[in-house]
Amino acid sequence: MHRILTAVTALSLCTAGAASAQDYAGHLKARQGQFRILAINLGTLGDMAQGKTEYDAEAAQAAADSLVAVSMIHQGPLWPEGSSEMDMDGTRAKSEIWDDWEDFAAKWGALGEAATAMQAAAGNGAEAIGPAMGGLGGACKACHDSYRAPQN
Amino acid sequence: MHRILTAVTALSLCTAGAASAQDYAGHLKARQGQFRILAINLGTLGDMAQGKTEYDAEAAQAAADSLVAVSMIHQGPLWPEGSSEMDMDGTRAKSEIWDDWEDFAAKWGALGEAATAMQAAAGNGAEAIGPAMGGLGGACKACHDSYRAPQN
Repeated sequence: MHRILTAVTALSLCTAGAASAQDYAGHLKARQGQFRILAINLGTLGDMAQGKTEYDAEAAQAAADSLVAVSMIHQGPLWPEGSSEMDMDGTRAKSEIWDDWEDFAAKWGALGEAATAMQAAAGNGAEAIGPAMGGLGGACKACHDSYRAPQN
Repeated sequence: MHRILTAVTALSLCTAGAASAQDYAGHLKARQGQFRILAINLGTLGDMAQGKTEYDAEAAQAAADSLVAVSMIHQGPLWPEGSSEMDMDGTRAKSEIWDDWEDFAAKWGALGEAATAMQAAAGNGAEAIGPAMGGLGGACKACHDSYRAPQN
């Protein structure tokens, strides 16, 4: 009984806003949040690559590690059917995502590979960041080109 | 009028170095998004533990893996000073986070340990999820008790 109560308590503590079939606002926040995390860490690495901030091996490595961490989040649960830009305000997710989920997932996998390459490069100096950043930019663009609607 | 607005805009752009609360809206979305990802995946696991949904080893494992992935995101870059509930609307982050960052980071580390325990348990049947969920609930609660302000 105690275990059940503990599990229920854990749920009520941690799942505020989680899946309610008719309301995917939380799912939008979840997936947009992960892109923000990518953006913040890409910004850190980009600023170092361009000399806007001084190279800091530890910060660069942490940023790259965070990119890899985000890329390890399974995307399926964050993209329920019925949460495209055709269904909801506040998202640019094209319905093509669900028409070709396998390709969408493969493009997420490509982001993971590019992040892993950055993870290997980031600690090796500012000049090592640029080429890895190119790979990440390509992975971002490939998915955006296919699956993100233009800004209104 | 337009010139005045432009000057004001330019001023606000030029003083961005002394980061205003406005600059951190993306950081709020980033950190709140990661908590949403946790919530969605904890919801999946909790529903299975309580028999609300049928146990699915693959989905349970994926959910646990995503918890671990989120726990691997470095928190430092997501919590700049000046982004507490005292500084900004839209966050319940108490200023105590920055008063004792080391403890805050340790509590995030404890979430990682609890997630890793769930990762080891989730594939072993619905009844294995409950105890691991208790550990996760404890990790959530420990941090919320210290560092999350009450809801308004």
